[in-house]
Amino acid sequence: MKRREFVKTASLAALSATALAACEKQPLQHSPQAPALRANKTFKWKMVTAWPKNFPGLGTGANYLAETITAMSGGRLEVKVYGAGELVPAFEAFDAVSKGTAEMGHAGAYYWKGKSEATQFFTTVPFGLTSQETLGWLKFGGGQELWDELYAPFNLKPFPAGSTGVQMGGWFNKEINQIEDFKGLKMRMPGLGGEVLQRVGGTVVNLPGGELFQAMQNGTLDATEWVGPYNDLAFGLHKVGKYYYWPGWHEPGSIMECFVNQKALAGLPQDLAAIVTHAMDAAYEQMSAEFTARNNRALTTLLTKHKVQLRHFSKDILTTLAKISQEVIEEMIERDPFSKRVYQSYSQFRKESMQWNQIGELGYAQARALVF
Amino acid sequence: MKRREFVKTASLAALSATALAACEKQPLQHSPQAPALRANKTFKWKMVTAWPKNFPGLGTGANYLAETITAMSGGRLEVKVYGAGELVPAFEAFDAVSKGTAEMGHAGAYYWKGKSEATQFFTTVPFGLTSQETLGWLKFGGGQELWDELYAPFNLKPFPAGSTGVQMGGWFNKEINQIEDFKGLKMRMPGLGGEVLQRVGGTVVNLPGGELFQAMQNGTLDATEWVGPYNDLAFGLHKVGKYYYWPGWHEPGSIMECFVNQKALAGLPQDLAAIVTHAMDAAYEQMSAEFTARNNRALTTLLTKHKVQLRHFSKDILTTLAKISQEVIEEMIERDPFSKRVYQSYSQFRKESMQWNQIGELGYAQARALVF
Repeated sequence: MKRREFVKTASLAALSATALAACEKQPLQHSPQAPALRANKTFKWKMVTAWPKNFPGLGTGANYLAETITAMSGGRLEVKVYGAGELVPAFEAFDAVSKGTAEMGHAGAYYWKGKSEATQFFTTVPFGLTSQETLGWLKFGGGQELWDELYAPFNLKPFPAGSTGVQMGGWFNKEINQIEDFKGLKMRMPGLGGEVLQRVGGTVVNLPGGELFQAMQNGTLDATEWVGPYNDLAFGLHKVGKYYYWPGWHEPGSIMECFVNQKALAGLPQDLAAIVTHAMDAAYEQMSAEFTARNNRALTTLLTKHKVQLRHFSKDILTTLAKISQEVIEEMIERDPFSKRVYQSYSQFRKESMQWNQIGELGYAQARALVF
Repeated sequence: MKRREFVKTASLAALSATALAACEKQPLQHSPQAPALRANKTFKWKMVTAWPKNFPGLGTGANYLAETITAMSGGRLEVKVYGAGELVPAFEAFDAVSKGTAEMGHAGAYYWKGKSEATQFFTTVPFGLTSQETLGWLKFGGGQELWDELYAPFNLKPFPAGSTGVQMGGWFNKEINQIEDFKGLKMRMPGLGGEVLQRVGGTVVNLPGGELFQAMQNGTLDATEWVGPYNDLAFGLHKVGKYYYWPGWHEPGSIMECFVNQKALAGLPQDLAAIVTHAMDAAYEQMSAEFTARNNRALTTLLTKHKVQLRHFSKDILTTLAKISQEVIEEMIERDPFSKRVYQSYSQFRKESMQWNQIGELGYAQARALVF
């Protein structure tokens, strides 16, 4: 019951903040009178995001989170969402919330690898956990506690607030038949996957999602990954990329995060802190369902309407990429002690997951594929 | 944004209920004064369940849901959980909430196939959707609307409130090497899977989870499925079953439901109705993460500490079970028009899911299994 422990901790934090700010009229104990007192104070929060305003799945996922908090609080905590560039640029969301320019930020943790390499474990890891497994690790395998520790020095409390599920391998203007075909390729790929790409001779050009179409069009990029069928169709990447590769070895289950300014969170009454906390879970579930459902339909559209050419990375290519992924991670944990701690927890969970996955989800999916 | 539409509908329902019950002092519009007025009224709800009190995963999942609602409402809506038999027996939860004996019930929809065969689609279908896909169907594929329609005549509003993920094929006291080995087998298996079992000569004995250990011990059952490693270990089924079979063809992603008495839900102010609605999502996510994480560890314990013998249903057996599953469903939709409507929606979603799953989750899991 880790989550319950957090709610308790958040509540205690809220109580101590109140002791400092007497003007809040914060009730120190839950009592029948408490809700009415609390209800007198309302909050208006800003949420900055790394996504184009209302971008399908990611931007609308941030909107959904904000609306959920506003609805559950009966308007006592109103959250307004800002698209990338509206209040701050996409890649400045972390600093903006850390400094208190906004109270919340919605992004992917691997965007902040310049702050700490270990952030990358909290989005996705090449050949790592699926999204269902990552959530298991975060909530019941010690992952959340490590993430909290990593973000605490920045005055941030992180939450998983959505998932794209497994991603696609990306759009390429030439076929990738052997590992050498990555050489000289200018490709967008964030996180650890990008480091693997560099080791096989690619040039990583990291751009926010909103700039990918143009960069593919004007030759800044030869290849790009973004998310999967639903999101890639929304950006029109099938118009600028010839071959659509699977599987998404570099992003097997990407978690979207929402980080909250700790001081702002501690300033909320107990019930609003619980609402913020659990709204994250509700938004996570909603986004995960949306990507699952809409990837299905978008894939059909891409294949039948737009005649997209699907390609599969060969077993040899995947094996090489997996070996290099392992090297990249081992070097990282060698130079960064916090990454080492995270990796120990993550890889232990991965080991156990592999066994259950083989006879569970994978075992079933293979059985289902046998027949109809 | 189906979920948002529901919140809106629920709110409208709340408003019309208020018009009838003037004593509620329900504000007709959101205004700065509204929260304080609402806060004056508190609610105490009962949740009956089909699980032994505090049973790991399922019973504790119901507890988590109740605590989440209580915490987010600041105690304005307190939910008390009753284990199976405490207020009503496991399989009477549906009627109890329908009549208003309790406001909420936590169970599996397939337990109510005596009310309508179509309920079974809302837990799991043999060779059907995974849990991730089922949630996609419910929230973005029209499934929830059909479920709402099915439960409305019983004064109930259903929600997905958890998932066990893929289950196991069950515990058997003899090896199942050919389809004939099911003949004469007394086995517990609810839902459509149980009907398939009967077609291959088994005798279905459906008992609540809490009675399975004893029934296996005293010979009432020769075989039983329950959930998966985490829950099966909790009941000690490894002590009474010799072979542990995979995959769980009959329950590929079982959804746990929470149904709410419609009148009770409509009697809540807007913010509490939103809290109840979104708490379901938060509880869903929590349970899904818990089963994913704890199945991993429990499987390791079963295999290493208890030396459980894993067995895999052969390709021939699975193919036969899949064909019979299809027959069972076709006969059901022939005799039950509502099941036909649900199946049309479900099978369309399944068809699209298969394509994306092959290159997405399954495609990735196979790639990952190649290497380390």
